[in-house]
Amino acid sequence: MKKYDKLQKNALGRIVPGEVNGQKVYPYMGIGKHRPSGRKYATPIVSSADFPADGNKLIPNLKEALIKSGLKDGMTISTHHHFRNGDLVADQIFDIAKEMGIKNLVWFPSASFECHSTLIKYLEDGTIHHIEGSMNGALGRFTTEGKMAGIGVLRSHGGRYQAIQDGEVHIDIAVIAAPTADPFGNATGDRGPAACGLLGFALGDSQYADKVIIVTDNLIPFPCIPWQIQGNYVDYVVQLEKIGIPEKIVSGTTEITKSPDRLLLAEWTAQFCDEAGIIKDGFSFQAGAGGTALSIGIYFAEILKARGMKSRWARGGSNKYLVKMLEDGLLEYILDGQTFDLEGVRSMRENEGHVNTSPFTSYNYHGKGNFASMVDVVILGATEVDVNFNANVVSHSDGYLLHGIGGWQNCLFAKCTILPVPLFRDRIPIIVDEVTTICGPGELIDVIVTERGIAINPRRKDLIELMKDSKLPIKTIEELKEEAERICGKPEKPKLTDEIVAIIKWVDGTVIDAVRKIEK
Amino acid sequence: MKKYDKLQKNALGRIVPGEVNGQKVYPYMGIGKHRPSGRKYATPIVSSADFPADGNKLIPNLKEALIKSGLKDGMTISTHHHFRNGDLVADQIFDIAKEMGIKNLVWFPSASFECHSTLIKYLEDGTIHHIEGSMNGALGRFTTEGKMAGIGVLRSHGGRYQAIQDGEVHIDIAVIAAPTADPFGNATGDRGPAACGLLGFALGDSQYADKVIIVTDNLIPFPCIPWQIQGNYVDYVVQLEKIGIPEKIVSGTTEITKSPDRLLLAEWTAQFCDEAGIIKDGFSFQAGAGGTALSIGIYFAEILKARGMKSRWARGGSNKYLVKMLEDGLLEYILDGQTFDLEGVRSMRENEGHVNTSPFTSYNYHGKGNFASMVDVVILGATEVDVNFNANVVSHSDGYLLHGIGGWQNCLFAKCTILPVPLFRDRIPIIVDEVTTICGPGELIDVIVTERGIAINPRRKDLIELMKDSKLPIKTIEELKEEAERICGKPEKPKLTDEIVAIIKWVDGTVIDAVRKIEK
Repeated sequence: MKKYDKLQKNALGRIVPGEVNGQKVYPYMGIGKHRPSGRKYATPIVSSADFPADGNKLIPNLKEALIKSGLKDGMTISTHHHFRNGDLVADQIFDIAKEMGIKNLVWFPSASFECHSTLIKYLEDGTIHHIEGSMNGALGRFTTEGKMAGIGVLRSHGGRYQAIQDGEVHIDIAVIAAPTADPFGNATGDRGPAACGLLGFALGDSQYADKVIIVTDNLIPFPCIPWQIQGNYVDYVVQLEKIGIPEKIVSGTTEITKSPDRLLLAEWTAQFCDEAGIIKDGFSFQAGAGGTALSIGIYFAEILKARGMKSRWARGGSNKYLVKMLEDGLLEYILDGQTFDLEGVRSMRENEGHVNTSPFTSYNYHGKGNFASMVDVVILGATEVDVNFNANVVSHSDGYLLHGIGGWQNCLFAKCTILPVPLFRDRIPIIVDEVTTICGPGELIDVIVTERGIAINPRRKDLIELMKDSKLPIKTIEELKEEAERICGKPEKPKLTDEIVAIIKWVDGTVIDAVRKIEK
Repeated sequence: MKKYDKLQKNALGRIVPGEVNGQKVYPYMGIGKHRPSGRKYATPIVSSADFPADGNKLIPNLKEALIKSGLKDGMTISTHHHFRNGDLVADQIFDIAKEMGIKNLVWFPSASFECHSTLIKYLEDGTIHHIEGSMNGALGRFTTEGKMAGIGVLRSHGGRYQAIQDGEVHIDIAVIAAPTADPFGNATGDRGPAACGLLGFALGDSQYADKVIIVTDNLIPFPCIPWQIQGNYVDYVVQLEKIGIPEKIVSGTTEITKSPDRLLLAEWTAQFCDEAGIIKDGFSFQAGAGGTALSIGIYFAEILKARGMKSRWARGGSNKYLVKMLEDGLLEYILDGQTFDLEGVRSMRENEGHVNTSPFTSYNYHGKGNFASMVDVVILGATEVDVNFNANVVSHSDGYLLHGIGGWQNCLFAKCTILPVPLFRDRIPIIVDEVTTICGPGELIDVIVTERGIAINPRRKDLIELMKDSKLPIKTIEELKEEAERICGKPEKPKLTDEIVAIIKWVDGTVIDAVRKIEK
């Protein structure tokens, strides 16, 4: 089997394969252009007669649960990143697979972290064939250097749900690590020693995987309330001593930025939203983690407070600042996809207005709508933006794949998408002629805020009109690019071969771009 | 098309059809004997590109929503009984269908009530071909008299979810009446002028119907929290002036019995549970509505309080007595399938330990287990019980089909099933040689409590042993039957023809019995 085949040009002019890891894939056709046909994946009908009547699905250990689940060569195994860099479960699964001599597994994580670089040895020895999911840090380097046996497939959080639902990825065994669970398999993430908030990234896996294993280090008597994951989808429950390292579960930047440049980005972004009339009573917003985004949230809160207004809802990634807005009455609901700190976890447990969501409700493009397109303004990051407003989040200008997509692609559907980015990092321009990897098409990206000026996408004539008398430094994207190049010089193109090592899926399952092997 | 065909004897010796309304059905084979094959029903893949980006799915009126949903002859339309006898929505749907000249619809309610007898005119004029769902009161009489064009199909609440999930019933259009909803289609039953508690009976419909319409008389801005029904499954939202009559929504007996005979049944049932060791710290129970069941709950509460114990969970049908147990700390969780009074609605809204469930979690036999089999003791009613402990809940001894199955069949899987029933009603014995209609097989029914003695199923040697020194009047079922006959005389057999008018499905989709046309 060829790793990939049938190269073709997609609607953005990128050369992408029509076949990957032996499976047909479709080139990106434009936003909303690819209309799915067919039906969702249908799981086999099971019978309660084959499950313990007393609801006790406990199995002595993970190995036995994997054997009962029929673990064998070539299977697809899913795990989830609720514990982020503190995950202790993925390693154990593949240690067991290695011990059993299993080969060619597909690892389908909802995201990978630096802690998962331990799995490189299994990519090297053939236990794992390839990864479908984000390949961060060391795993990304490994992939970019062409060392993975198969082609990496990167999806957004919503795209991952879509792929599961539509049967593009068939999960043989889902292992869901749960901070609290009961013997029936009901599970929650908002309490327990490894509390991480919610388990939404595992929802699709629980619904569609052939076998579902819950592992927990906090087993309680039935019923586990809330049941973020429902035991009616679960085959086996395993008790482990420890499933995550609490101090590493809550990672990410949880403090506002102190950098004057970043503070300026935050201030201008907030001011832009205000002048454009986006901040008003009942508006909705989403800002990710990271110091700049957190600072923007604080500006929003100040504006709302000063005017006696409140936001109807915000999408999380939640953090202590968002929780404070909720508890101060400046925000009615947090619709949370992921808690970034312990205050977020506490609030989800305590506040009725802090609601856990899933990629199904928030992001699934192959649903009857989703939350992402209803958000008034979303503030996101990027590693590169090009003069057509196309943006990159997965690779750096040196060509290395170093990040996952997360919910980034899905969020682009907001009514206004703003990317506050520095004009350059380490003297490498962020605004370029052509991004190394297109993750999001420029037509969905409305505003680029840099410390030397703000560019509005020419398609957004409404925003340009609204801002025509602004004192903010509104420039064209070309002006920003030229300014970056004046300071840093014309950036060098990354040294890449033609060989494809990974593909980037769009929210509808089509291939928006491919990542090339680096030239050594 | 013949209404039914291929008569055969099932595992209980009842003659049932192998084909009904043109569709193949399987005879009952015994508990856990029918193992399903194949896959669940797969809905078509849709795209968010076909839904409003701003999440506003409002349609001016129900007729337009039905037209947009493609309403046409022969379709299956589902509604739900959350408003019980105060439903104002089902009527409107079929009024519109009649006005449009639509014929041969299948009505697939989660249950019907006396208020739905207005639909008889549409069964007569061909607008509705037949009903798949409970046929209470007037609709039951109409059916038993052979007046329905097709064969009625009665299912338990769990069986209804199973039938939807497995594709035995394909719902073309689900109309879900919601006491509160937002324009995206998120909906809840626990608040609003027509608050009914929960919307769990519509869960399967929302997940599997081709088109899903939410109708509400309390539209609020996105997000409607909690979202008992998720807008991501919803096509259209319609605002109506009034969807239910509040004073009729909360029906059923909501006061404890004052009848000395019924109080005796309650007392003996509680005492039986106590002596058999069922009432202990952390035990679980389910008692339905109705005066006797309510009284048993009060006995349970008294025993727990006296001993400083508490119940871990109770399944609702919730009511003020169960809510009091929860709020008094005698009960940790109410896992509620239906709220029977306003205290239940309030509690579900206010108490974290009052959890809304659905037929999927509670009753679906074709899941990876369900809650019903985990309950320590369930207390149910019956219209007839025979000497083999087979019981009937849908028809009376005169042959008339007058009740739905509700969750009754599903509940039989509890660890101990007790039926407290009067020995006779209106001088007609309840304990008989052979029930008119078998709804539940005797091997799942453990104890019959009457005011003249208690019969334990001979299969439950453990219970017989535990109760051997009891002062309770333990008798055989034959003794109870003879006693009833001594008092009332041998009951007459109902005068029935051979013609089948309805079938009774078992929890696994097989046919456990058929209802015959009455001889006029």
